[in-house]
Amino acid sequence: MARWEPNAPQRLADAALELFAERGYENTTVLDIAQRAGLAKSTFFRHFQDKREVLFGENALAGPLVAAIAAAPAEAAPLDAVACGFDALARDVFTPARRAFTVRRRAVIDAHPDLQEREALKGVSLTASMTRAMADRGLPDLVARVTAELGALALRIAYRRWSDSGNTDEFGALARRALGEVQAAALTVEGGPGRFPRP
Amino acid sequence: MARWEPNAPQRLADAALELFAERGYENTTVLDIAQRAGLAKSTFFRHFQDKREVLFGENALAGPLVAAIAAAPAEAAPLDAVACGFDALARDVFTPARRAFTVRRRAVIDAHPDLQEREALKGVSLTASMTRAMADRGLPDLVARVTAELGALALRIAYRRWSDSGNTDEFGALARRALGEVQAAALTVEGGPGRFPRP
Repeated sequence: MARWEPNAPQRLADAALELFAERGYENTTVLDIAQRAGLAKSTFFRHFQDKREVLFGENALAGPLVAAIAAAPAEAAPLDAVACGFDALARDVFTPARRAFTVRRRAVIDAHPDLQEREALKGVSLTASMTRAMADRGLPDLVARVTAELGALALRIAYRRWSDSGNTDEFGALARRALGEVQAAALTVEGGPGRFPRP
Repeated sequence: MARWEPNAPQRLADAALELFAERGYENTTVLDIAQRAGLAKSTFFRHFQDKREVLFGENALAGPLVAAIAAAPAEAAPLDAVACGFDALARDVFTPARRAFTVRRRAVIDAHPDLQEREALKGVSLTASMTRAMADRGLPDLVARVTAELGALALRIAYRRWSDSGNTDEFGALARRALGEVQAAALTVEGGPGRFPRP
Protein backbone atom coordinates (compact mmCIF):
# COMPACT_ATOMS: atom_id res chain seq x y z
CA MET A 1 0.00 0.00 0.00
CA ALA A 2 1.34 3.37 -0.98
CA ARG A 3 1.43 5.84 1.88
CA TRP A 4 0.48 9.39 1.13
CA GLU A 5 3.60 11.50 1.39
CA PRO A 6 3.11 15.24 1.67
CA ASN A 7 4.94 17.22 -1.00
CA ALA A 8 6.98 14.21 -2.09
CA PRO A 9 8.05 15.61 -5.51
CA GLN A 10 9.59 18.75 -4.02
CA ARG A 11 11.23 16.81 -1.17
CA LEU A 12 12.76 14.45 -3.72
CA ALA A 13 13.95 17.33 -5.93
CA ASP A 14 15.51 19.12 -2.93
CA ALA A 15 17.23 15.93 -1.81
CA ALA A 16 18.50 15.30 -5.34
CA LEU A 17 20.03 18.77 -5.63
CA GLU A 18 21.70 18.41 -2.23
CA LEU A 19 23.25 15.11 -3.25
CA PHE A 20 24.29 16.33 -6.69
CA ALA A 21 26.13 19.20 -4.99
CA GLU A 22 27.75 16.94 -2.40
CA ARG A 23 28.89 14.00 -4.52
CA GLY A 24 28.09 14.81 -8.13
CA TYR A 25 25.20 13.92 -10.40
CA GLU A 26 26.86 10.73 -11.72
CA ASN A 27 27.58 9.39 -8.25
CA THR A 28 24.03 9.78 -6.97
CA THR A 29 21.47 6.98 -7.33
CA VAL A 30 17.70 7.06 -7.15
CA LEU A 31 17.93 5.09 -3.90
CA ASP A 32 20.27 7.73 -2.45
CA ILE A 33 17.77 10.45 -3.34
CA ALA A 34 14.81 8.62 -1.85
CA GLN A 35 16.70 7.86 1.36
CA ARG A 36 17.85 11.46 1.75
CA ALA A 37 14.24 12.58 1.33
CA GLY A 38 13.08 10.01 3.87
CA LEU A 39 10.95 8.26 1.26
CA ALA A 40 10.83 4.85 -0.39
CA LYS A 41 12.40 4.22 -3.79
CA SER A 42 8.94 3.21 -5.01
CA THR A 43 7.67 6.66 -4.06
CA PHE A 44 10.36 8.16 -6.28
CA PHE A 45 9.18 6.11 -9.24
CA ARG A 46 5.55 7.03 -8.63
CA HIS A 47 6.53 10.62 -9.40
CA PHE A 48 9.52 10.43 -11.77
CA GLN A 49 10.50 7.98 -14.47
CA ASP A 50 14.25 8.26 -13.86
CA LYS A 51 16.98 10.26 -12.12
CA ARG A 52 17.05 12.99 -14.76
CA GLU A 53 13.33 13.61 -14.44
CA VAL A 54 13.54 14.62 -10.77
CA LEU A 55 14.80 18.06 -11.85
CA PHE A 56 11.92 18.66 -14.25
CA GLY A 57 8.84 18.39 -12.09
CA GLU A 58 5.60 16.84 -13.18
CA ASN A 59 4.63 19.05 -16.05
CA ALA A 60 4.65 21.89 -13.53
CA LEU A 61 4.72 24.70 -16.08
CA ALA A 62 2.24 23.65 -18.73
CA GLY A 63 -0.74 23.41 -16.38
CA PRO A 64 -0.76 26.96 -14.95
CA LEU A 65 0.45 28.46 -18.25
CA VAL A 66 -2.27 26.86 -20.37
CA ALA A 67 -5.00 27.62 -17.82
CA ALA A 68 -4.06 31.30 -17.67
CA ILE A 69 -3.86 31.61 -21.46
CA ALA A 70 -7.34 30.11 -21.68
CA ALA A 71 -8.62 32.53 -19.03
CA ALA A 72 -7.17 35.65 -20.68
CA PRO A 73 -9.79 38.13 -21.94
CA ALA A 74 -11.19 37.12 -25.34
CA GLU A 75 -10.10 40.42 -26.84
CA ALA A 76 -6.47 40.09 -25.67
CA ALA A 77 -3.91 40.11 -28.48
CA PRO A 78 -1.98 36.84 -28.84
CA LEU A 79 1.14 37.95 -26.96
CA ASP A 80 -1.01 39.61 -24.28
CA ALA A 81 -2.57 36.21 -23.60
CA VAL A 82 0.94 34.79 -23.29
CA ALA A 83 1.75 37.58 -20.82
CA CYS A 84 -1.23 36.46 -18.70
CA GLY A 85 0.28 32.97 -18.73
CA PHE A 86 3.62 34.34 -17.51
CA ASP A 87 1.86 36.21 -14.70
CA ALA A 88 0.42 32.89 -13.56
CA LEU A 89 3.87 31.28 -13.59
CA ALA A 90 5.20 34.16 -11.49
CA ARG A 91 2.38 33.70 -8.98
CA ASP A 92 2.22 29.89 -8.78
CA VAL A 93 5.56 28.44 -9.87
CA PHE A 94 8.49 30.83 -10.13
CA THR A 95 7.90 32.42 -6.76
CA PRO A 96 10.63 34.24 -4.83
CA ALA A 97 10.76 31.28 -2.41
CA ARG A 98 11.67 29.00 -5.31
CA ARG A 99 14.47 31.05 -6.76
CA ALA A 100 17.31 29.53 -4.71
CA PHE A 101 16.24 26.04 -5.82
CA THR A 102 16.26 27.22 -9.43
CA VAL A 103 19.76 28.68 -9.22
CA ARG A 104 21.10 25.36 -7.91
CA ARG A 105 19.10 23.33 -10.42
CA ARG A 106 20.48 25.33 -13.31
CA ALA A 107 24.09 24.78 -12.18
CA VAL A 108 23.52 21.01 -12.33
CA ILE A 109 21.82 21.13 -15.72
CA ASP A 110 24.45 23.39 -17.25
CA ALA A 111 27.10 20.83 -16.29
CA HIS A 112 25.41 17.78 -17.89
CA PRO A 113 24.60 17.43 -21.59
CA ASP A 114 22.02 14.70 -20.98
CA LEU A 115 20.13 17.02 -18.64
CA GLN A 116 20.33 19.82 -21.21
CA GLU A 117 18.86 17.38 -23.73
CA ARG A 118 15.98 16.58 -21.38
CA GLU A 119 15.42 20.30 -20.81
CA ALA A 120 15.35 20.92 -24.57
CA LEU A 121 12.70 18.24 -25.00
CA LYS A 122 10.63 19.72 -22.18
CA GLY A 123 10.84 23.03 -24.00
CA VAL A 124 9.56 21.49 -27.23
CA SER A 125 6.68 19.91 -25.34
CA LEU A 126 5.85 23.16 -23.55
CA THR A 127 5.82 25.04 -26.87
CA ALA A 128 3.37 22.46 -28.22
CA SER A 129 1.12 23.00 -25.18
CA MET A 130 1.21 26.76 -25.73
CA THR A 131 0.40 26.29 -29.41
CA ARG A 132 -2.70 24.27 -28.51
CA ALA A 133 -3.72 26.84 -25.91
CA MET A 134 -3.47 29.64 -28.48
CA ALA A 135 -5.34 27.62 -31.10
CA ASP A 136 -8.07 26.99 -28.52
CA ARG A 137 -8.47 30.76 -28.33
CA GLY A 138 -9.57 30.63 -31.96
CA LEU A 139 -6.36 31.84 -33.57
CA PRO A 140 -5.38 30.55 -37.02
CA ASP A 141 -2.96 27.63 -36.79
CA LEU A 142 0.10 29.54 -37.96
CA VAL A 143 -0.55 32.53 -35.70
CA ALA A 144 -0.89 30.12 -32.78
CA ARG A 145 2.44 28.49 -33.68
CA VAL A 146 4.32 31.76 -34.13
CA THR A 147 2.92 33.13 -30.87
CA ALA A 148 3.97 29.98 -29.02
CA GLU A 149 7.50 30.04 -30.49
CA LEU A 150 8.00 33.70 -29.58
CA GLY A 151 6.45 33.15 -26.15
CA ALA A 152 8.67 30.14 -25.52
CA LEU A 153 11.75 32.13 -26.49
CA ALA A 154 10.76 34.94 -24.09
CA LEU A 155 10.16 32.36 -21.35
CA ARG A 156 13.63 30.83 -21.82
CA ILE A 157 15.23 34.26 -21.71
CA ALA A 158 13.30 35.30 -18.59
CA TYR A 159 13.99 32.01 -16.82
CA ARG A 160 17.69 32.31 -17.60
CA ARG A 161 17.82 35.83 -16.17
CA TRP A 162 15.74 34.90 -13.15
CA SER A 163 18.05 31.98 -12.33
CA ASP A 164 21.19 34.11 -12.58
CA SER A 165 22.62 34.05 -9.09
CA GLY A 166 23.02 37.85 -9.06
CA ASN A 167 19.42 38.56 -10.07
CA THR A 168 16.94 40.08 -7.63
CA ASP A 169 14.02 40.94 -9.96
CA GLU A 170 10.82 38.96 -9.61
CA PHE A 171 9.93 36.59 -12.41
CA GLY A 172 6.81 38.38 -13.63
CA ALA A 173 8.67 41.61 -14.37
CA LEU A 174 11.48 39.74 -16.12
CA ALA A 175 9.02 37.75 -18.22
CA ARG A 176 7.08 40.78 -19.40
CA ARG A 177 10.30 42.59 -20.22
CA ALA A 178 11.60 39.60 -22.22
CA LEU A 179 8.31 39.35 -24.07
CA GLY A 180 8.54 43.02 -25.01
CA GLU A 181 12.10 42.54 -26.25
CA VAL A 182 11.18 39.48 -28.33
CA GLN A 183 8.21 41.31 -29.80
CA ALA A 184 10.34 44.31 -30.75
CA ALA A 185 12.93 42.02 -32.35
CA ALA A 186 10.22 40.20 -34.31
CA LEU A 187 9.30 43.48 -35.99
CA THR A 188 12.83 43.94 -37.36
CA VAL A 189 13.42 40.62 -39.15
CA GLU A 190 11.23 41.22 -42.17
CA GLY A 191 12.66 40.62 -45.62
CA GLY A 192 12.51 43.05 -48.52
CA PRO A 193 9.10 43.94 -49.97
CA GLY A 194 7.84 41.45 -52.51
CA ARG A 195 10.70 39.09 -51.87
CA PHE A 196 8.45 36.42 -50.34
CA PRO A 197 5.21 35.29 -51.93
CA ARG A 198 2.41 36.13 -49.48
CA PRO A 199 -0.22 33.51 -48.73
CA MET B 1 41.83 -1.19 -41.65
CA ALA B 2 38.70 0.70 -42.62
CA ARG B 3 37.89 0.36 -46.28
CA TRP B 4 36.53 3.41 -48.03
CA GLU B 5 32.90 2.76 -48.86
CA PRO B 6 31.31 5.05 -51.42
CA ASN B 7 28.24 6.82 -50.12
CA ALA B 8 28.00 4.59 -47.06
CA PRO B 9 25.68 6.88 -45.01
CA GLN B 10 23.01 6.99 -47.70
CA ARG B 11 23.32 3.26 -48.42
CA LEU B 12 22.84 2.55 -44.71
CA ALA B 13 19.87 4.90 -44.48
CA ASP B 14 18.23 3.31 -47.53
CA ALA B 15 18.81 -0.18 -46.14
CA ALA B 16 17.40 0.87 -42.76
CA LEU B 17 14.20 2.24 -44.31
CA GLU B 18 13.74 -0.91 -46.37
CA LEU B 19 14.09 -3.08 -43.28
CA PHE B 20 11.87 -0.86 -41.11
CA ALA B 21 9.16 -1.21 -43.77
CA GLU B 22 9.61 -4.98 -44.07
CA ARG B 23 9.88 -6.05 -40.45
CA GLY B 24 9.33 -2.97 -38.32
CA TYR B 25 11.70 -0.56 -36.62
CA GLU B 26 11.81 -2.54 -33.35
CA ASN B 27 12.68 -5.80 -35.10
CA THR B 28 15.61 -4.39 -37.06
CA THR B 29 19.16 -4.41 -35.65
CA VAL B 30 22.21 -2.41 -36.63
CA LEU B 31 23.76 -5.64 -37.92
CA ASP B 32 20.71 -6.24 -40.14
CA ILE B 33 21.07 -2.76 -41.58
CA ALA B 34 24.79 -3.10 -42.26
CA GLN B 35 24.32 -6.50 -43.92
CA ARG B 36 21.49 -5.23 -46.12
CA ALA B 37 23.71 -2.35 -47.22
CA GLY B 38 26.58 -4.75 -47.89
CA LEU B 39 28.73 -3.05 -45.26
CA ALA B 40 30.37 -4.01 -41.99
CA LYS B 41 28.75 -3.21 -38.65
CA SER B 42 31.88 -1.18 -37.83
CA THR B 43 31.20 0.96 -40.89
CA PHE B 44 27.74 1.71 -39.49
CA PHE B 45 29.24 2.93 -36.23
CA ARG B 46 31.79 5.09 -38.02
CA HIS B 47 28.85 7.12 -39.35
CA PHE B 48 26.06 6.79 -36.76
CA GLN B 49 26.07 6.44 -32.99
CA ASP B 50 23.00 4.20 -32.86
CA LYS B 51 20.05 2.81 -34.82
CA ARG B 52 17.95 5.94 -34.40
CA GLU B 53 20.68 8.15 -35.78
CA VAL B 54 20.70 6.43 -39.19
CA LEU B 55 17.58 8.42 -40.12
CA PHE B 56 19.08 11.77 -39.22
CA GLY B 57 22.17 12.01 -41.39
CA GLU B 58 25.44 13.50 -40.31
CA ASN B 59 24.45 17.05 -39.60
CA ALA B 60 23.39 17.20 -43.25
CA LEU B 61 21.26 20.34 -42.91
CA ALA B 62 23.30 22.65 -40.72
CA GLY B 63 26.33 22.75 -43.04
CA PRO B 64 24.69 23.99 -46.26
CA LEU B 65 22.22 26.17 -44.35
CA VAL B 66 24.86 27.99 -42.30
CA ALA B 67 27.17 28.40 -45.30
CA ALA B 68 24.43 29.96 -47.42
CA ILE B 69 23.31 32.29 -44.62
CA ALA B 70 26.93 33.44 -44.27
CA ALA B 71 27.18 33.99 -48.04
CA ALA B 72 23.94 36.01 -48.32
CA PRO B 73 24.45 39.65 -49.35
CA ALA B 74 25.45 41.85 -46.42
CA GLU B 75 22.45 44.09 -47.01
CA ALA B 76 19.92 41.19 -46.95
CA ALA B 77 17.24 41.49 -44.26
CA PRO B 78 17.42 38.72 -41.62
CA LEU B 79 14.66 36.56 -43.12
CA ASP B 80 16.05 37.10 -46.62
CA ALA B 81 19.32 35.57 -45.45
CA VAL B 82 17.31 32.62 -44.11
CA ALA B 83 15.64 32.31 -47.52
CA CYS B 84 19.08 32.04 -49.13
CA GLY B 85 19.78 29.19 -46.73
CA PHE B 86 16.58 27.45 -47.79
CA ASP B 87 17.55 27.82 -51.45
CA ALA B 88 20.77 25.98 -50.66
CA LEU B 89 18.87 23.16 -48.95
CA ALA B 90 16.62 22.86 -52.00
CA ARG B 91 19.67 22.64 -54.26
CA ASP B 92 21.95 20.39 -52.19
CA VAL B 93 19.81 18.35 -49.79
CA PHE B 94 16.06 18.30 -50.40
CA THR B 95 16.37 17.53 -54.10
CA PRO B 96 13.53 15.96 -56.11
CA ALA B 97 15.55 12.70 -56.18
CA ARG B 98 15.48 12.62 -52.39
CA ARG B 99 11.78 13.14 -51.90
CA ALA B 100 10.72 9.47 -52.00
CA PHE B 101 13.27 8.67 -49.28
CA THR B 102 11.88 11.52 -47.20
CA VAL B 103 8.28 10.34 -47.49
CA ARG B 104 9.25 6.87 -46.23
CA ARG B 105 11.50 8.28 -43.51
CA ARG B 106 8.70 10.42 -42.19
CA ALA B 107 6.31 7.47 -41.96
CA VAL B 108 8.78 5.65 -39.71
CA ILE B 109 9.43 8.68 -37.52
CA ASP B 110 5.73 9.48 -37.14
CA ALA B 111 5.18 5.95 -35.80
CA HIS B 112 7.89 6.04 -33.11
CA PRO B 113 7.98 8.49 -30.20
CA ASP B 114 11.69 7.93 -29.58
CA LEU B 115 12.44 8.93 -33.16
CA GLN B 116 10.23 11.99 -32.79
CA GLU B 117 12.24 12.86 -29.71
CA ARG B 118 15.48 12.57 -31.65
CA GLU B 119 14.03 14.73 -34.40
CA ALA B 120 12.97 17.36 -31.87
CA LEU B 121 16.52 17.49 -30.49
CA LYS B 122 17.96 17.81 -33.99
CA GLY B 123 15.59 20.72 -34.49
CA VAL B 124 16.82 22.46 -31.34
CA SER B 125 20.40 21.98 -32.46
CA LEU B 126 19.65 23.27 -35.96
CA THR B 127 17.97 26.37 -34.51
CA ALA B 128 21.08 26.99 -32.42
CA SER B 129 23.23 26.74 -35.58
CA MET B 130 20.97 29.21 -37.36
CA THR B 131 21.15 31.58 -34.39
CA ARG B 132 24.95 31.56 -34.52
CA ALA B 133 24.91 32.07 -38.30
CA MET B 134 22.63 35.11 -37.93
CA ALA B 135 24.73 36.52 -35.05
CA ASP B 136 27.83 36.11 -37.25
CA ARG B 137 26.12 38.45 -39.74
CA GLY B 138 26.35 41.13 -37.07
CA LEU B 139 22.74 41.02 -35.87
CA PRO B 140 21.93 41.79 -32.23
CA ASP B 141 21.61 38.61 -30.17
CA LEU B 142 17.85 38.76 -29.77
CA VAL B 143 17.20 39.52 -33.45
CA ALA B 144 19.39 36.54 -34.34
CA ARG B 145 17.41 34.32 -31.98
CA VAL B 146 14.00 35.46 -33.20
CA THR B 147 15.06 35.08 -36.83
CA ALA B 148 16.32 31.57 -36.16
CA GLU B 149 13.10 30.54 -34.34
CA LEU B 150 10.89 31.87 -37.13
CA GLY B 151 13.14 30.35 -39.78
CA ALA B 152 13.13 26.98 -38.01
CA LEU B 153 9.34 27.04 -37.82
CA ALA B 154 9.11 27.80 -41.55
CA LEU B 155 11.56 24.99 -42.26
CA ARG B 156 9.49 22.47 -40.28
CA ILE B 157 6.33 23.55 -42.08
CA ALA B 158 7.96 23.35 -45.51
CA TYR B 159 9.57 19.98 -44.77
CA ARG B 160 6.25 18.60 -43.58
CA ARG B 161 4.49 19.74 -46.75
CA TRP B 162 7.31 18.52 -48.99
CA SER B 163 7.22 15.07 -47.40
CA ASP B 164 3.45 14.75 -47.83
CA SER B 165 3.04 11.85 -50.20
CA GLY B 166 0.64 13.83 -52.38
CA ASN B 167 2.94 16.81 -52.79
CA THR B 168 4.67 17.60 -56.09
CA ASP B 169 6.07 21.10 -55.41
CA GLU B 170 9.81 21.47 -55.16
CA PHE B 171 11.28 22.26 -51.77
CA GLY B 172 12.58 25.73 -52.55
CA ALA B 173 9.15 27.05 -53.50
CA LEU B 174 7.54 25.46 -50.44
CA ALA B 175 10.18 26.89 -48.13
CA ARG B 176 9.85 30.46 -49.43
CA ARG B 177 6.07 30.23 -49.20
CA ALA B 178 6.25 28.95 -45.59
CA LEU B 179 8.69 31.73 -44.70
CA GLY B 180 6.29 34.30 -46.11
CA GLU B 181 3.41 32.82 -44.12
CA VAL B 182 5.41 32.77 -40.88
CA GLN B 183 6.51 36.33 -41.45
CA ALA B 184 2.94 37.49 -42.06
CA ALA B 185 1.77 35.69 -38.91
CA ALA B 186 4.56 37.27 -36.87
CA LEU B 187 3.16 40.71 -37.71
CA THR B 188 -0.23 39.84 -36.19
CA VAL B 189 0.74 38.64 -32.73
CA GLU B 190 1.58 42.00 -31.21
CA GLY B 191 0.06 42.91 -27.87
CA GLY B 192 -1.73 46.15 -27.11
CA PRO B 193 0.26 49.41 -27.20
CA GLY B 194 2.12 50.15 -23.99
CA ARG B 195 1.19 46.83 -22.50
CA PHE B 196 4.79 45.56 -22.54
CA PRO B 197 7.70 47.60 -21.25
CA ARG B 198 10.06 48.18 -24.18
CA PRO B 199 13.78 47.57 -23.68
